[in-house]
Amino acid sequence: MNPLTADERAAALAALPGWTLRDDGKAISRSFAFADFRAAFGFMAQVALLAEKQDHHPEWANVYNRVDITLTTHDANGLTQRDIRLATAIDRLA
Amino acid sequence: MNPLTADERAAALAALPGWTLRDDGKAISRSFAFADFRAAFGFMAQVALLAEKQDHHPEWANVYNRVDITLTTHDANGLTQRDIRLATAIDRLA
Repeated sequence: MNPLTADERAAALAALPGWTLRDDGKAISRSFAFADFRAAFGFMAQVALLAEKQDHHPEWANVYNRVDITLTTHDANGLTQRDIRLATAIDRLA
Repeated sequence: MNPLTADERAAALAALPGWTLRDDGKAISRSFAFADFRAAFGFMAQVALLAEKQDHHPEWANVYNRVDITLTTHDANGLTQRDIRLATAIDRLA
């Protein structure tokens, strides 16, 4: 799978308004805030199931009610359609 | 709850050989590696249940098969017995 071109990235991000492109263009990130840890981890469990189903996994961190997610495709050394697909599915959950 | 003294910290860490004290003495960290994401997230789910039961939550990050955990007690601005208790319970899982 090839990295998205700059035009493809721009088009994909237009449909993912909560996500920010990293300066190097190789990853996208979004932070989510929930009522408490229980809600945050419930969300993480849902994301984990999506990730496993898509065989594409986030880089993510959690502190109490907050979940920070970064998506990139290591095999392609950049942002690919797999990241966009997972981000879109995550947004549907949140 | 008060932060542990330097002596108390040293005694506690002697029983937690996998954990490293942060330079400022206010937190401990440990990295865990698993076979794959499924195993890593399974571990995280168990830690989440422990954390919720102890009402004390980790700062943590996951990338594929790796889980990095930091424990500190924000209310005490330092390391307390609550961190030691959670670290001990986590070690029993891993």
